[in-house]
Amino acid sequence: MGSPPPGLSWPLIEQARARIAPLIHTTPVMTSATLDARAGAQLYFKCENFQKGGAFKARGASNAVFGLGEAEARRGVATHSSGNHAAALARAARLRAIPAYIVMPHNTPLAKRAAVERQGAAITLCEPTQAARERAAAEILATTGAVLVHPYDDLLVMAGQGTVAVELLEQVADLDVLIAPVSGGGLLSGIAVAARTLRPRLRILGVEPAGADDAVRSLRAGRIVPCERPETIADGLRATVGVRPFAEIRRHVDDILTVPDAAIVAAMRAIWEIMKIIVEPSGAAAYAAVAEGRADLQGKRIGVVLSGGNLDLDTLPWITPARG
Amino acid sequence: MGSPPPGLSWPLIEQARARIAPLIHTTPVMTSATLDARAGAQLYFKCENFQKGGAFKARGASNAVFGLGEAEARRGVATHSSGNHAAALARAARLRAIPAYIVMPHNTPLAKRAAVERQGAAITLCEPTQAARERAAAEILATTGAVLVHPYDDLLVMAGQGTVAVELLEQVADLDVLIAPVSGGGLLSGIAVAARTLRPRLRILGVEPAGADDAVRSLRAGRIVPCERPETIADGLRATVGVRPFAEIRRHVDDILTVPDAAIVAAMRAIWEIMKIIVEPSGAAAYAAVAEGRADLQGKRIGVVLSGGNLDLDTLPWITPARG
Repeated sequence: MGSPPPGLSWPLIEQARARIAPLIHTTPVMTSATLDARAGAQLYFKCENFQKGGAFKARGASNAVFGLGEAEARRGVATHSSGNHAAALARAARLRAIPAYIVMPHNTPLAKRAAVERQGAAITLCEPTQAARERAAAEILATTGAVLVHPYDDLLVMAGQGTVAVELLEQVADLDVLIAPVSGGGLLSGIAVAARTLRPRLRILGVEPAGADDAVRSLRAGRIVPCERPETIADGLRATVGVRPFAEIRRHVDDILTVPDAAIVAAMRAIWEIMKIIVEPSGAAAYAAVAEGRADLQGKRIGVVLSGGNLDLDTLPWITPARG
Repeated sequence: MGSPPPGLSWPLIEQARARIAPLIHTTPVMTSATLDARAGAQLYFKCENFQKGGAFKARGASNAVFGLGEAEARRGVATHSSGNHAAALARAARLRAIPAYIVMPHNTPLAKRAAVERQGAAITLCEPTQAARERAAAEILATTGAVLVHPYDDLLVMAGQGTVAVELLEQVADLDVLIAPVSGGGLLSGIAVAARTLRPRLRILGVEPAGADDAVRSLRAGRIVPCERPETIADGLRATVGVRPFAEIRRHVDDILTVPDAAIVAAMRAIWEIMKIIVEPSGAAAYAAVAEGRADLQGKRIGVVLSGGNLDLDTLPWITPARG
């Protein structure tokens, strides 16, 4: 039996806060009288869709890149990801003027590839399988000596994401509940450790799509149970929870709720129509759980993390486009 | 020859500010490093899409309704409008607990009708012609004694809209240019009088769609020249400039620019994608003019009014929906 990996501690989050402050936005908190009335609660939306790069990922990636020592950093950073983490890592590397190596499946949407290219990262295309991604990344690490920055199973990344909660708890007094989506768990675990430290009696909830409910099942089983075939419109919530995030989630998160895709789409549309802001499906998941009007949330002051706003505006879930 | 109507004076705007403060949002100013770089200027977006009801109209309507004397107010207010002004007037009347009578063409989109009904206003449907609208409104005024609140040709409405500029000039120091869309002219005239008073050397620009360029032609002719058949995607910018607004626009506005619909759609999409906020086509028009990168705006600090964010999310201009 190996010893458990070291956990995420509050000092790591405090350090992250100071380290990334010049590199990211302190995102605003928005409210809506209409959505409050619908939910029967007071909702404080933490708008990470307004974060640099359009998602909270800028926090963790910046913390990981700027947390490296000089010699280590000079060799560069690498990751295998097709999503927001890749672009965020490439941006952080550009800001530190070090190389970034990104492995992407060749079927990655062009828009996401372009976002990484704009940051000047070196892209390696591979077959769209987990094995091919890991093999390509291993080769890069071996030849360049670059440091792998995992999208979520990394304490510096988790600490960076945790700054979402640090900010929110400064911006809004007396929150009763904090609710955030969970995928690989970097965001939820960081938030949980931060919130548990700053406000021990806060209720901390995670949300995941019903079609990608590995975190719920893992909590129940007491060990990580991957979703073999995640099926959800929330493309940012398909990963399986990581080892380090899972340890913190077990310790600090009060419950994880699941929401069907229809509720995610309805929540996304309500946020667009009523709040006039763009969130991606993953970004709307936490509000989707709140919108169901669960009795135990009535009358509460709830911090709701809108995790990101990156999506292809040509294909909205409520519009069937004409065949080309 | 009749004497000219009284003009919009600064004290009316100051009064409006105090009167409507408890009834509206002080809307945020947003910035975007990406859009700044594209425009070669520093842009300060005044987000009236976040205003109550999703558009600046809440300002003027609230000022008109709460500016009435007790006896007058008790008889109620009326307007003929299918758009944001009707819903804003209905809301203000509800807040003052007085009747609101709204005349709407029977082909008004259901969503807009529902927005007015939700505020408890009495709706009268009429044929979709200007004559039918005015006749229906005249009948209501005659039978109820209600006060007509015109959507823009009204000093209290203009004064209310002018508070957009009062706020913006408090929020952002040292603006060089202020740019706003023009339709009936209530917003632009109010802004122009406020800005001219508070910052006399500020450059004040209006923007209208190339297919509804009555304000440009009216300025050139020195008298109001209606657009017989306005054709633009910006449904909020199809009205002909009103008498009172036109007088202020002639006096205070430095220039009015026109933008083609394609530029409006591109601007709208850029704001959605990059700023992650929802603006309607009319709301994107001012930025569309800036995005063209005119030499005389380079390096300037520009206040850009995003006037509203109400639109049907089922029909986006860049998606051709499937035939039902």
